[in-house]
Amino acid sequence: MSYIMLAILAGLLAVLYGVVQTVSLMRASPGNARMQEIAAAIQEGAQAYLNRQYTAIGIVGAVIFVALFPLLGGLAAFGFLIGAVLSGLAGFVGMLISVRANVRTAQAASEGLAQGLSMAFRSGAITGMLVAGFALLGVAGYFHFLTGVMGLAYNDRHVIDALVALGFGASLISIFARLGGGIFTKGADVGGDMVGKVEAGIPEDDPRNAATIADNVGDNVGDCAGMAADLFETYAVTIVATMVLAAIFFGAGALNLMLLPLVICAVCIVTSILGTFAVRLGRSQNIMGALYQGLIVTGVLSIGAIWWAVHALVPGPVTTNSGLVIDAQSLFLCGLVGLAVTALIVVITEYYTGTGFRPVKSVAKASVSGHGTNVIQGLAMSLESTAAPAIVIIAGIMITFGLAGLYGIAIATTAMLGVAGFIVALDAFGPVTDNAGGIAEMAGLPAEVRVTTDALDAVGNTTKAVTKGYAIGSAGLGALVLFAAYTEDLKYFSAEAKPGSFFEGLGTVAFDLSNPYVVVGLLFGGLLPFLFGGLSMTAVGRAAESVVEEVRRQFRENPGIMTGEVKPEYGRAVSILTNAAIREMIVPSLLPVVSPVVLFFVITAVAGKANGFASLGAMLMGVIVTGLFVAISMTSGGGAWDNAKKLIEEGHYGGKGSEAHKAAVTGDTVGDPYKDTSGPAVNPMIKITNIVALLLLAILHAAG
Amino acid sequence: MSYIMLAILAGLLAVLYGVVQTVSLMRASPGNARMQEIAAAIQEGAQAYLNRQYTAIGIVGAVIFVALFPLLGGLAAFGFLIGAVLSGLAGFVGMLISVRANVRTAQAASEGLAQGLSMAFRSGAITGMLVAGFALLGVAGYFHFLTGVMGLAYNDRHVIDALVALGFGASLISIFARLGGGIFTKGADVGGDMVGKVEAGIPEDDPRNAATIADNVGDNVGDCAGMAADLFETYAVTIVATMVLAAIFFGAGALNLMLLPLVICAVCIVTSILGTFAVRLGRSQNIMGALYQGLIVTGVLSIGAIWWAVHALVPGPVTTNSGLVIDAQSLFLCGLVGLAVTALIVVITEYYTGTGFRPVKSVAKASVSGHGTNVIQGLAMSLESTAAPAIVIIAGIMITFGLAGLYGIAIATTAMLGVAGFIVALDAFGPVTDNAGGIAEMAGLPAEVRVTTDALDAVGNTTKAVTKGYAIGSAGLGALVLFAAYTEDLKYFSAEAKPGSFFEGLGTVAFDLSNPYVVVGLLFGGLLPFLFGGLSMTAVGRAAESVVEEVRRQFRENPGIMTGEVKPEYGRAVSILTNAAIREMIVPSLLPVVSPVVLFFVITAVAGKANGFASLGAMLMGVIVTGLFVAISMTSGGGAWDNAKKLIEEGHYGGKGSEAHKAAVTGDTVGDPYKDTSGPAVNPMIKITNIVALLLLAILHAAG
Repeated sequence: MSYIMLAILAGLLAVLYGVVQTVSLMRASPGNARMQEIAAAIQEGAQAYLNRQYTAIGIVGAVIFVALFPLLGGLAAFGFLIGAVLSGLAGFVGMLISVRANVRTAQAASEGLAQGLSMAFRSGAITGMLVAGFALLGVAGYFHFLTGVMGLAYNDRHVIDALVALGFGASLISIFARLGGGIFTKGADVGGDMVGKVEAGIPEDDPRNAATIADNVGDNVGDCAGMAADLFETYAVTIVATMVLAAIFFGAGALNLMLLPLVICAVCIVTSILGTFAVRLGRSQNIMGALYQGLIVTGVLSIGAIWWAVHALVPGPVTTNSGLVIDAQSLFLCGLVGLAVTALIVVITEYYTGTGFRPVKSVAKASVSGHGTNVIQGLAMSLESTAAPAIVIIAGIMITFGLAGLYGIAIATTAMLGVAGFIVALDAFGPVTDNAGGIAEMAGLPAEVRVTTDALDAVGNTTKAVTKGYAIGSAGLGALVLFAAYTEDLKYFSAEAKPGSFFEGLGTVAFDLSNPYVVVGLLFGGLLPFLFGGLSMTAVGRAAESVVEEVRRQFRENPGIMTGEVKPEYGRAVSILTNAAIREMIVPSLLPVVSPVVLFFVITAVAGKANGFASLGAMLMGVIVTGLFVAISMTSGGGAWDNAKKLIEEGHYGGKGSEAHKAAVTGDTVGDPYKDTSGPAVNPMIKITNIVALLLLAILHAAG
Repeated sequence: MSYIMLAILAGLLAVLYGVVQTVSLMRASPGNARMQEIAAAIQEGAQAYLNRQYTAIGIVGAVIFVALFPLLGGLAAFGFLIGAVLSGLAGFVGMLISVRANVRTAQAASEGLAQGLSMAFRSGAITGMLVAGFALLGVAGYFHFLTGVMGLAYNDRHVIDALVALGFGASLISIFARLGGGIFTKGADVGGDMVGKVEAGIPEDDPRNAATIADNVGDNVGDCAGMAADLFETYAVTIVATMVLAAIFFGAGALNLMLLPLVICAVCIVTSILGTFAVRLGRSQNIMGALYQGLIVTGVLSIGAIWWAVHALVPGPVTTNSGLVIDAQSLFLCGLVGLAVTALIVVITEYYTGTGFRPVKSVAKASVSGHGTNVIQGLAMSLESTAAPAIVIIAGIMITFGLAGLYGIAIATTAMLGVAGFIVALDAFGPVTDNAGGIAEMAGLPAEVRVTTDALDAVGNTTKAVTKGYAIGSAGLGALVLFAAYTEDLKYFSAEAKPGSFFEGLGTVAFDLSNPYVVVGLLFGGLLPFLFGGLSMTAVGRAAESVVEEVRRQFRENPGIMTGEVKPEYGRAVSILTNAAIREMIVPSLLPVVSPVVLFFVITAVAGKANGFASLGAMLMGVIVTGLFVAISMTSGGGAWDNAKKLIEEGHYGGKGSEAHKAAVTGDTVGDPYKDTSGPAVNPMIKITNIVALLLLAILHAAG
């Protein structure tokens, strides 16, 4: 069996796992009529939102699809289509599962903690495996189609351009889905809390609040569909970028090294599936322990699997075009570093966001002195939390580069992403348990059910934070691999330039920091995550405001809602938020798409092509550098605020209802758009600027 | 008269201005006995704090002074001493004036707004002119001593090393003064508000609060002494770096181009002094208008003065060692760009922090929905506010580099800093009016006096924000000039390396972004402002807590304080804060000093000298890139929160005492350490990493 077939089969296996588990999940009881009614409202809202979102993205996508035909040819246009459709599909199917698993989890939780955990985790695992499976199928399948069916050479530019376009398709969906979903979910959450908890004085998830259904919808379209699209993208573009690097570095002998990332991901899909079966609640009833047990099984099995993969594909030493000799052993060690980086980022994120450690405790303690000090301490922790992950990434870069050059960094990133299926499972578990709690509350299930769903939900908060740390770390490393692909592509185009072509006479482009245009690029790239963060936070504020007005209007015009005699119009709140989220996502999403193109042409006009390319390259690095810190600080800080509130609610520092609790609620509100909208949306933003630059190179090259 | 004498005379003129104005200021009435008593307590506290602070810094400084003898020789050690002493002196004298002007301003305010403004601004102008005068005297005087008296060649390495060491001395004081002062002032402010306003329910500046005197002391040691040391440093190191660049670029014909920054600063001291006389309150009683009138006069006169300076020193075209031809016209245009950047940054900062524009209004409006939304909107604005200044800086770099290469960027930065005397005057005006208000309150002066001091204080908030924007913009550009000096120095040392010396065989060091060690440097540099920001925010929190405990203890142990029968022990609060600030400032301050050295030796050990130097260079750039954004976002965001509160207190969005006002107070509290501790301290942090790197080069070179 050829290795490419192995990758395709692994992708199919993941999809098969999803189908089988879905069938089994759907057989479970969806609870009583009231529960089913609530779940139906959530399903309807989520479906309606995603339909609108994907229609809006579809219009942008269709324009780009058509534009790619003359610019890069049909193969690239279809690559773009495949990436976009599969990325969208991963999010969409994940959401479909998750809005059906929520009510079943609520029902299962009424039978026991183990049952609830099993149901919620199974639902997450379906999404996780579909993300990894679709991404691997897309890249491996299209590569096989291009080289096996169409008979193109594996290092033909058309093949590479088509794969880059596939990555671009995934990126485009991902930024819209992350940002649109993020604005929706936090608009609903913040707006609902403001008008419900603060103004009307009714509890969270109270059915009288017209925004509750929207809040539950938001969990699914943000944390589930948004995260799925995000990791689909990182997964796909990292494999693509590693393949591009291999094609450039290893010349005629590149095939096996191009296939290596596909095979690593293939074997890690198998280990991830095996890991899901290891998630079992032990006697200690430790939910987090059960999940980590699965993660550890996946990690340990992956070590062996990666060992097999590198030795199978790289039986003897290979030499790069710059003379570096690489062997299976060094590549295996790079894979280990990738797994170690994953493990360390998980540990560090848990330190900064877990209730048992100094950072969260310090935020909770600061809440005692008031709102201001809670926020100050949260911001301090959010800034501090960037240092350790950055050091881990720096060490990872140094070690893997020392082992196997840029290709080594790429393989480490691939190994890190190999286990994405399991990690997404951990994340997609979160919204399901969150929804299950809401449904239990609204359906008036017995208090002990709510205790069970709350326990699951608390763990969901931690796993969400942990996967965000992982998503950002891998996105940062993935972006570095993309940047390497950009610089190597440029060298290649410049060396191969035909007379009269765009790259003729370009020579070697130096990205030297002593060139002021490089500094300009760095600064311009550096400002993007800040501006993007600012715009997206403002967008959440506006979306929340529109919800507040709508809920106020319903309370005012229909006094029966407050007395519980009349049901609020949940659908209108969902529809208003949908409009707000779609409207608000467009401009910030286009910022990273348009900026690289504008910068390149402006600098080229002012200072020539070489400076244009150098400045563009520096811009990519600028986005990575500030984006990494902005994203980590936002997601860790948000997690710390969230869990500081949880810690107080558990009875520390004054407990529920105390002044400290009010201050902690403020921190939590601030952390919401930080950790669920702006921070995670910076990930796809970093990568899309990089992939747009790669695409620009390909287009300029194709133009002659 | 030689040009160097012109520079020395201008420095003396500035000092003379300071002396004359001080004499006239001291003649003004210090008010009634109660006012004098309060002022004496503030004076005593400020003096005691600065004595402790400078003793602590003195110990660190003495170690470095002694260490520099064997490392770089006596001339460099004395250069370090001059920079350190003058920088400390500028801050110290500024503080001495400002704690005497406060009570006189309160007294003058009781006579009228014009009198109050005149007194407060005059005090600020003394500090401003001393900063510029001492800095120019230090650099020009030592340069004259080395070349004129000792007869060294003007481009002798000993001369250059001595000047770099002078810059390092200034930097070291600056980071400690900025950070220590910032922790003190915000520890007092936040802590005092928490225990006074929030817990005890007494107003701000209430004499029963034991932290009030400490709060007033903090304004002087933070905003006045801290800012003075900071701008002294930027001023001195920018001149030094421009001189170093000139010495390297222009070889044998460098003298006039080395003198050009000194002469530009000299003529701009004259225009700044003239500008101070243009600050007069017109019929419209517009305080901000009066101050801007002075700034505009300074700016317009500076255009002519810089025109004269460049034509006098560069009569004909000059050629750099890389063949670039530069003439007076292009250098004049660079100077204009420097002034334009100053003007634009002032306008942009006012937009983001002024009460009349969208950002502050949006934060005030968001306060209506609660604490959380106030903070979210403030953070959104703080992130957004980085974009426009960055674009201005990018445009400035591109235009001036196009006009006159790296030297052009340096001249633009010099012109920007030329008017620092006037800008510091605007800033040092702030703490004086703030103190005057506090004294008026505590001394029980009639309400109309408090109205006058409040009007002055509100303007002081804006001018403080504006000068912070300027300080950061100029620090960013100044750091780029330092970075250029680093790369050029390295080229020079490498080319001149003697056999057996450290730089032998180094060849050309490429700071190419495709080198992973460069990426490592960028990431490591990038994390420093984040980590530093986190540590300093935490430090403020701890300092505030210590104050809270002390004030609580006094209230508890002495019930007579609350009834007004017994005076609280102000001195103890000051002393506790002093200890906290000194303790907390050491570790964060040493972070940027130690990091460059550690990174260089680690990377050199792993990957050789060339990568060590490349990584170190990239680290400098990483600090500049993230530091610029972190600092701008913190200072603008803090200003926006502060003025959003002011806007509400003026009666908008519910007015004083409303829920919106409470939320705005939370935002203001969060903004305090943002804008007055962490944000401004990032400035010297950026520059100190750069100057430590320059010094490291010099030491490695001197070591043979």
